[in-house]
Amino acid sequence: MDYDHFFNAALDTLHQERRYRVFVTLEKDAARFPHATRQTPTGTSDVVIWCSNDYLGMSMHPDTIGAMVDTARQMGVGAGGTRNISGTSGPIVALERALADLHRKESALVFTSGYVSNETGIATLAKLLPDCLLLSDEWNHNSMIQGVRRSGAEKAVFRHNDLEHLEDLLKAAGRERPKMIVFESVYSMDGDVSPIHAVCDLADKYNALTYIDEVHAVGIYGERGGGYSEEVGAQDRLDIIEATLAKGFGCIGGYLAAKSSIIDAVRSNAHGFIFTTALPPAVAAAAAASVTHLMNSNTERLAQRKQVQRTKEVLVKAGLPVRKNPTHIVPVIIGDAERTKLASDLLLDDHGIYVQPINYPTVPRGTERLRITPTPFHSDELIDQLADALVAVWGKLGLPLHAPQEDA
Amino acid sequence: MDYDHFFNAALDTLHQERRYRVFVTLEKDAARFPHATRQTPTGTSDVVIWCSNDYLGMSMHPDTIGAMVDTARQMGVGAGGTRNISGTSGPIVALERALADLHRKESALVFTSGYVSNETGIATLAKLLPDCLLLSDEWNHNSMIQGVRRSGAEKAVFRHNDLEHLEDLLKAAGRERPKMIVFESVYSMDGDVSPIHAVCDLADKYNALTYIDEVHAVGIYGERGGGYSEEVGAQDRLDIIEATLAKGFGCIGGYLAAKSSIIDAVRSNAHGFIFTTALPPAVAAAAAASVTHLMNSNTERLAQRKQVQRTKEVLVKAGLPVRKNPTHIVPVIIGDAERTKLASDLLLDDHGIYVQPINYPTVPRGTERLRITPTPFHSDELIDQLADALVAVWGKLGLPLHAPQEDA
Repeated sequence: MDYDHFFNAALDTLHQERRYRVFVTLEKDAARFPHATRQTPTGTSDVVIWCSNDYLGMSMHPDTIGAMVDTARQMGVGAGGTRNISGTSGPIVALERALADLHRKESALVFTSGYVSNETGIATLAKLLPDCLLLSDEWNHNSMIQGVRRSGAEKAVFRHNDLEHLEDLLKAAGRERPKMIVFESVYSMDGDVSPIHAVCDLADKYNALTYIDEVHAVGIYGERGGGYSEEVGAQDRLDIIEATLAKGFGCIGGYLAAKSSIIDAVRSNAHGFIFTTALPPAVAAAAAASVTHLMNSNTERLAQRKQVQRTKEVLVKAGLPVRKNPTHIVPVIIGDAERTKLASDLLLDDHGIYVQPINYPTVPRGTERLRITPTPFHSDELIDQLADALVAVWGKLGLPLHAPQEDA
Repeated sequence: MDYDHFFNAALDTLHQERRYRVFVTLEKDAARFPHATRQTPTGTSDVVIWCSNDYLGMSMHPDTIGAMVDTARQMGVGAGGTRNISGTSGPIVALERALADLHRKESALVFTSGYVSNETGIATLAKLLPDCLLLSDEWNHNSMIQGVRRSGAEKAVFRHNDLEHLEDLLKAAGRERPKMIVFESVYSMDGDVSPIHAVCDLADKYNALTYIDEVHAVGIYGERGGGYSEEVGAQDRLDIIEATLAKGFGCIGGYLAAKSSIIDAVRSNAHGFIFTTALPPAVAAAAAASVTHLMNSNTERLAQRKQVQRTKEVLVKAGLPVRKNPTHIVPVIIGDAERTKLASDLLLDDHGIYVQPINYPTVPRGTERLRITPTPFHSDELIDQLADALVAVWGKLGLPLHAPQEDA
């Protein structure tokens, strides 16, 4: 065994398969978002970010920056320990209280990331429940898939948003067997939504727990930013709500919200929670400021909705293949890995527009795409520039445009 | 299945088994560390933290606070995306460069936590190597154990620091089979160290990769804070160095440092890296400031060593059962879960001294302990107060003291 040779060959294969990723380095500027400075080995250039999951620009909100700055000055930059060993700070306790309030649940528990909250949350709950069956939507995020795998529990994957399939699987398991339905509210790549009430109806009928991932919805939907379950009035019907502090809320970290007995079960048994350093007080304070702000302000949500709607309209009018959905995610389908990558490169190099290509395995082959996420800070002018640039790139690559349409 | 009943019963069991944890809530104060304010439902009180893993107090260093404050103001509080989708910031790239330099490796890769870096790092490398055998020290941290499990690779656990046992296992596997020895430099609960050079000798002899966890050593040992492997001059002999930004460096996050081909393999295949939001630029900047400061300053290390040495001497002189080791961790063995908890409660309530009890399964039954971590900020006076308080608690609980000794 020659390890050097092995890893060098693996690297060569990555290059050959065009899977070698070069990350785009960005210097963000809170005062100019979504404009940022791209760093390359040969220099810098101005770009407009069109693919951030900082959906509302809350990472640059004066309240969140102010909370991080003040708390860092007062308490320093780190927690200094696990939650059990000196790492439980006032700000993280206050954040958990705010999150429980946001989702109208008894308790909440914060993790170092949304990835970890899904992975260790699902695994821990399914391990505790005797002979648990996990019913998992086939489009669930990698973190949920990993949680399902790690639990060691039996899993039954149902076709995406297919209620009949889900019911068949529930019926086959019977009322008595412990079951947990694991699904998302907003699916990030197509921006489609799940039928939450209908899933809860089935959960009631067959006596299953419901575990929903609201990662792409919190802060953005619902009168207080409680996510799509708040938007459709289903918060009380869901047993466990999982989400992130890193997207709509603009920070980092993940969490679960549920009944206290469920939260205590996870808190007491989840390795990925117990054996890791707590989020820094300054991060927790920034996240709490963001959550609290968005519970009390609809300004950001309304502004985002307006610019999303306009983006969709302008791109559709230009004949670009926008995939329809009811959310803030704007998928423009190209259907080919190579040309998706080329389109992204041309947008960046020729037009200063940064949209990362989304290829297999993140999306199915043949549906490779650009995934565009307008924020409240993407002005009408920027939207028009985006449409013009896309049309130019489409022309250069010989990609088909629909006939221009008057109505979106 | 009655889920409410199930989780309430699980909660009752936690209480009955005395495994229900109540976290101590602390408001840290950068200007007064290790003094902090403890929050309870009935009010607040002043405590001295004696169990933080912010070993050098770097979370409260002006350089780290300044870097977080400046970067938050300039770039906001979050990264806004995964590393591949708009989340690669100037500060995180600079941090990875500093970490590679620190360990004299070609590259480094930052994760959201040390837990994640071990779990996904070990699992990814062992999955890539065909028919890999993982040789794992029995005292390895939970994050490493989880990484070994998740890899699906065959594992062989060797007795703690037992070179003969390790050699037997290596010999049995043969030179040709891919093998990775997974171990720590400083074991956190006893504060003992591994024989790094001897492990590397065996790795050379039997053609194994070496993966070392330097979580409790970086910042603290070595002329530039490169960890115990730098202290003993073994950095170049180790294939993969894993460590944290959350302890000696005072922030949050974890990393691997290795040859570029190994780092690229992890970067391209580790789910726990690919599918999660990047560390915020402000956190990366704070961590980089801490790493850079400790690469150029021995002041903190020398001050810590002095106060650790004095703490050990004063406690030994007072007849307290300090477990000997060559590091900055001061284990005081009680050997009984109930009395360890009582001792911790008495220290907190009667003396304003916060040391979390360490019980099974974190340490073997019969070796329950207080784990004390003196920093440069624990003054001689605080050390004397700690010794007096411990002696008082020992008396109250009827715990045995050794005869007072003149020499430590």
